[in-house]
Amino acid sequence: MIRAEVSPASLHLAARDRSVAQRVSGVAYWPDFTASHRTMPLTPNSVNVLRLLYLFDIFAVVVFAVSGALVASRKRLDVMGFMWLGVVTGVGGGTIRDVILNVPVFWVLDPRYVSACLITAIVMHFIAPLVESRYRTLLWFDAFGLALVTVAGTVKALDVGTPPLVAIAMGAVTGCVGGIIRDTLGQVPSVLLRHEIYVTASVLGACTYVALNGVGTTRPAAMITAFLVTFIVRSLAIAFGWSLPVFRASSQQGTDEAQT
Amino acid sequence: MIRAEVSPASLHLAARDRSVAQRVSGVAYWPDFTASHRTMPLTPNSVNVLRLLYLFDIFAVVVFAVSGALVASRKRLDVMGFMWLGVVTGVGGGTIRDVILNVPVFWVLDPRYVSACLITAIVMHFIAPLVESRYRTLLWFDAFGLALVTVAGTVKALDVGTPPLVAIAMGAVTGCVGGIIRDTLGQVPSVLLRHEIYVTASVLGACTYVALNGVGTTRPAAMITAFLVTFIVRSLAIAFGWSLPVFRASSQQGTDEAQT
Amino acid sequence: MIRAEVSPASLHLAARDRSVAQRVSGVAYWPDFTASHRTMPLTPNSVNVLRLLYLFDIFAVVVFAVSGALVASRKRLDVMGFMWLGVVTGVGGGTIRDVILNVPVFWVLDPRYVSACLITAIVMHFIAPLVESRYRTLLWFDAFGLALVTVAGTVKALDVGTPPLVAIAMGAVTGCVGGIIRDTLGQVPSVLLRHEIYVTASVLGACTYVALNGVGTTRPAAMITAFLVTFIVRSLAIAFGWSLPVFRASSQQGTDEAQT
Repeated sequence: MIRAEVSPASLHLAARDRSVAQRVSGVAYWPDFTASHRTMPLTPNSVNVLRLLYLFDIFAVVVFAVSGALVASRKRLDVMGFMWLGVVTGVGGGTIRDVILNVPVFWVLDPRYVSACLITAIVMHFIAPLVESRYRTLLWFDAFGLALVTVAGTVKALDVGTPPLVAIAMGAVTGCVGGIIRDTLGQVPSVLLRHEIYVTASVLGACTYVALNGVGTTRPAAMITAFLVTFIVRSLAIAFGWSLPVFRASSQQGTDEAQT
Repeated sequence: MIRAEVSPASLHLAARDRSVAQRVSGVAYWPDFTASHRTMPLTPNSVNVLRLLYLFDIFAVVVFAVSGALVASRKRLDVMGFMWLGVVTGVGGGTIRDVILNVPVFWVLDPRYVSACLITAIVMHFIAPLVESRYRTLLWFDAFGLALVTVAGTVKALDVGTPPLVAIAMGAVTGCVGGIIRDTLGQVPSVLLRHEIYVTASVLGACTYVALNGVGTTRPAAMITAFLVTFIVRSLAIAFGWSLPVFRASSQQGTDEAQT
Repeated sequence: MIRAEVSPASLHLAARDRSVAQRVSGVAYWPDFTASHRTMPLTPNSVNVLRLLYLFDIFAVVVFAVSGALVASRKRLDVMGFMWLGVVTGVGGGTIRDVILNVPVFWVLDPRYVSACLITAIVMHFIAPLVESRYRTLLWFDAFGLALVTVAGTVKALDVGTPPLVAIAMGAVTGCVGGIIRDTLGQVPSVLLRHEIYVTASVLGACTYVALNGVGTTRPAAMITAFLVTFIVRSLAIAFGWSLPVFRASSQQGTDEAQT
């Protein structure tokens, strides 16, 4: 696999980087880069890209874990409650995705994701009020995490060979299911039941990737565009308080009153 | 596999129908028919049976998606909420069944089930009040869907080689878990906690199939009988407001009051 | 595999015991004993140990099913509700563990676990008030069950080859997730949200096993120690009403009031 003219130094580099690539195959699973490892020697540049993606990946999980810990804080749970909600929110979406796709669950292969969630939860147990007071800042980090894992989930599903529609669903599942489990376990109103553009941003990003991939765009370009679509839509929703219209038929009010 | 005397026309038919058979292996998974494809040429008749089963299958998923969309409507969700609850209710039971059986999830192989749920959810977003006003009609369709997927789930589990008791559980899971997830995510009183004969009808149907299969009845006969048992029990429960008795011991009231 | 000098009688014994060993590979999965079956003839002694472990295993599932049935009783459900909650609570944790580890679900291989839950649920439908009045006794049985399945889950995860941190998580998942699903489906305050030392006991036991395993302790010794750690911590929490401290920052009260 490794070309003959490779110097010992770069061989060592390649071996170390394959392990980076392997780790990267967790949430993010950027197979374009990992695949290229098999056929060409790694340049220091591509190694840095891999490292960056892996860091982004961990960052997204940490941001989700923070949102889980905040629910634990509002419910005044003990540190164990912080850890459960942190881990479940951090890795829940990717877990459901991997189970549905019937592939090994990413954090079973690479426990650093769980470690990151646990450390986040323990730290949050002490600084939750501080983070709570900077809630709007957190929303922007969450938008970044949502955009990142949406793209990662979509790419992973397509690479496993699912049809485009299923890949879009998997992107949304990776992005949103962690939050849904968090709200269900924490027994707070679910993100599903709020009129925010959250799931919508995720679905639009996943559609963008699948569409660009379908018309033959290169993978990095499609990934960056899809990331930006998710992030910008979600950001605009945060900034301007956007929500989707709720359909209200003239006859609905009567029906609802009859039920209540 | 294909007999030598098959004419080009029937070959084309067989190829097209194998793809029908493959699709049918989703929720319903009618392996009796799909297996026969491998050893004998398809008659136009068996093709029509396959098509009918596939249509029934999609119909059951659509009926479940409608019940999910109605919860979205009562909670006044946006179209994205309709889509989530529609898809989760439509394919949730079969998904849990496939994950527990460790087989590929049916809608990952055939995304038409998800498409059907999504289209249903979008249409429901506009006509929910209309459907709500015909709620009793919907109950009958739901009984039909329950009966169909219960049989399908039981057959699929037995074919994977599970013990009879597990197959009965899988039939009930396929029939009922979609509704349970719908009620949990929608944060409404769960079908589990209501005193309706819903799960019971599903379990009775699954038991019927396993019993008939055990005494050597042909598969179509066992399937039709199990379907009718589920449908009739559920229908009678709807028509007469049947429910199972709740055990109340003389000492229970005191205990409950002490707890409340 | 079987040594040549084995007498027909012991062969028969070995065959019967392999099936015991196979059943034991359910919740508990004691591979130290099952592995030894393959290389040496069973002694009557090891057979008795296997039988004991299998009985303990069933006992743990039954105790969990009782706690599920008690929730059904408090919600005044019909017998079908008792059966759902009994089965889900009894086998839920092990199911999630097996799905995440991507191994066959234990009760699909051995339906006796589900049978045990069903029988428990049906009996409980009639005697729930009696059991309710002895709730404190039940708590001790539950502590026993928690300790047992925590160890079993940790051992199974390590044997599948997961990293230590994942094995600890799997031990806690096996011990606690059944109760979490029970509380979510029963729509009662979740064990996650109560300030009891329940999850903590499970995590401590799993950590103990992983640590002892890491320093090379024999498997039976590590298992017994981990079991005792979980059981004693949980017992002390029951006996003295222990709970973990909840962090309250000076600024938190103000933040919470602002939110409420």
